[in-house]
Amino acid sequence: MSVYVASTTAPVNIATLKYWGKRDKNLNLPTNSSISVTLAQQDLRTLTSVATSESFPEDKLWLNGKEESLQSERTQHCLQDLRDLRKQLEAADPSLPRFSQWKLRIVSENNFPTAAGLASSAAGFAALVVAIAKLYQLPQSYSDISKIARKGSGSACRSLFGGYVAWEMGSNPDGSDSKAVEIAPMEHWPQMKAAVLVACADKKDTPSTSGMQQTVATSDLFQERINVVVPKRFEEMKQAILNKDFALFAELTMKDSNSFHATCLDSFPPIFYMNDTSRKIVKLCHFINAFYGETIVAYTYDAGPNAVLYYLQENEEKLFAFIYKVFQNNQGWDSKFSAKELAKFSEYFSTNVEPKLTTVLDDELHKGVTRVILTQVGPGPQNTTDSLIDPSTGLPK
Amino acid sequence: MSVYVASTTAPVNIATLKYWGKRDKNLNLPTNSSISVTLAQQDLRTLTSVATSESFPEDKLWLNGKEESLQSERTQHCLQDLRDLRKQLEAADPSLPRFSQWKLRIVSENNFPTAAGLASSAAGFAALVVAIAKLYQLPQSYSDISKIARKGSGSACRSLFGGYVAWEMGSNPDGSDSKAVEIAPMEHWPQMKAAVLVACADKKDTPSTSGMQQTVATSDLFQERINVVVPKRFEEMKQAILNKDFALFAELTMKDSNSFHATCLDSFPPIFYMNDTSRKIVKLCHFINAFYGETIVAYTYDAGPNAVLYYLQENEEKLFAFIYKVFQNNQGWDSKFSAKELAKFSEYFSTNVEPKLTTVLDDELHKGVTRVILTQVGPGPQNTTDSLIDPSTGLPK
Repeated sequence: MSVYVASTTAPVNIATLKYWGKRDKNLNLPTNSSISVTLAQQDLRTLTSVATSESFPEDKLWLNGKEESLQSERTQHCLQDLRDLRKQLEAADPSLPRFSQWKLRIVSENNFPTAAGLASSAAGFAALVVAIAKLYQLPQSYSDISKIARKGSGSACRSLFGGYVAWEMGSNPDGSDSKAVEIAPMEHWPQMKAAVLVACADKKDTPSTSGMQQTVATSDLFQERINVVVPKRFEEMKQAILNKDFALFAELTMKDSNSFHATCLDSFPPIFYMNDTSRKIVKLCHFINAFYGETIVAYTYDAGPNAVLYYLQENEEKLFAFIYKVFQNNQGWDSKFSAKELAKFSEYFSTNVEPKLTTVLDDELHKGVTRVILTQVGPGPQNTTDSLIDPSTGLPK
Repeated sequence: MSVYVASTTAPVNIATLKYWGKRDKNLNLPTNSSISVTLAQQDLRTLTSVATSESFPEDKLWLNGKEESLQSERTQHCLQDLRDLRKQLEAADPSLPRFSQWKLRIVSENNFPTAAGLASSAAGFAALVVAIAKLYQLPQSYSDISKIARKGSGSACRSLFGGYVAWEMGSNPDGSDSKAVEIAPMEHWPQMKAAVLVACADKKDTPSTSGMQQTVATSDLFQERINVVVPKRFEEMKQAILNKDFALFAELTMKDSNSFHATCLDSFPPIFYMNDTSRKIVKLCHFINAFYGETIVAYTYDAGPNAVLYYLQENEEKLFAFIYKVFQNNQGWDSKFSAKELAKFSEYFSTNVEPKLTTVLDDELHKGVTRVILTQVGPGPQNTTDSLIDPSTGLPK
């Protein structure tokens, strides 16, 4: 039997202008446009291989070594859209194998613990859609393909691009103009780095899909956010990125995270994603920016207590003088820094920070954090020679 | 020497529609009207005695046994207004002693720990103003007097009345129409009870005066709250009180607390008053209402982590089946209930609640709470024969 295989990687993205609220639940059409930074794949990525063969009896999916159902409506939606596009190619060129009628096998692996509560569904659906688009040799642009990923998981559309990405909400009822576009590639502003402080979570609060619906339906302040606050902030943040204005980018990022969580609190019943650890990290970031008299760090929180800190390479020592001091007992530092480099952060603290400190840092705060993930802005989906499928059997390796 | 003495008590009030934002900082003119419930004075009250005598060399103040400065601008503002009104009386009737030119001694005591972080300034300024108004035998109505108390502490104006009170924001730049009015006396709806869960606080976050200014200046969502959300809610809540519609009163109260804290979170830097304990109590209240399939409890939070729960007498057993179960290790229960009555709550829980519980209650939650204060709706300032001043010496007893 002949088995056709394709593989790709796809990145995680963390929004700096948040997606919260759907105007169409089935098509994952948002109530506002959003912006994100794509993170480097050596730290956070999904690798997905897909195979098709006339001999496959059914569609199958393996996630991180475990077979999973493919029956979710969203996944089916993506597969159908991709098969429809393939069918158009086959109609135009009868010599093409009839992939659109064959079953698929999909094998997917993350290089990070899904437990971390990082938006793995974004990378997952992006990789799924890109891998199949490659297998089917679809001619569509990544912006067009991003509309299919969007149907799997809204924020997945932003993982189709590297660097700095906008998800334009669009206005068409069929979602044909609700797609991801590149604001700027990573090369435009490669100094952007990110530190994820993974917080100890009790079981997650409201799932984001139902949480969004609850906010749209019950928050009295939500309409102001989506109609007035976000449209203005969207243009300002795009400009801040294009101008590489970190101070403005950071302020808009922090304000939008707070605005999003404010509408969650204004929902009824209220939705809480940040916990006391999250709040203390917010205060620490404002304290650090005030200490240096300039904005060197921005925090943002998704639908959970994890803090994602954005900062520029040039300020790493200034920032980590504080962050390493407070979180040095958490794992993850040695993935990026030698003992010598880490000692430098401690030295910078004791030499340049401690003497000027008017208050003591909370030496309990690290107890609310499980690990630190150090990463930076990165590229979009990548071709890879790694394959998770054995072409001779069409089964996971 | 002849010393003239007058005394009064004044109650604490807890807002159900929150005052947050000043349009005039010096006159304490609010950006929105607010509503509160006045609490019973056997549990929470300030007792204030004032004395005046031609022989007093200076104004003096004693708070809870300690001499304090009277120099705060707000206190001076109140004293001046009261002396001006007294001066009018003296001008009309030359036989009156010239109190308006004499110095004052003010002695004030709370019957609850100020540590509890309950709005003691409201009761304090209300008692101060009422006691002096009595000493001066001022003919003005309590609504007029409330404008003077308002200058001392905004929410103090609501402590001039018992029962259910509105602070009408007014529109005049001089504040002449920003005053408290009675929505309904306690007798209208005497079944309203309150349980205060005093939370363990780290040192208080932003003081409310500066916090309000920060929200007014920086929150993008605040204008929507004061221009659209609150005016509608103000009328609805008044009607809910007049109709004794607890379910509606409770929903509006919870929503307004959440809306207020949402605008604090939307401020920049964000302001946090609720902590993880506060949030867990919010969830517990929604869980209790869902469990019984009716709204029997409402939570509200001021500028701190303490929860104030409002409920009706008829639902006390249903509510305390949960609340006593979770917080029975906290002090305060025996102030209102015998061991026998408390046993009834436990029995109701094990008989009617536990068998139907689908989830376990958090048995750590009580650790975030220091004490329980059990009280109910109460009257306004009261005449009292207690005096904290010895008329023979004009000094604190």
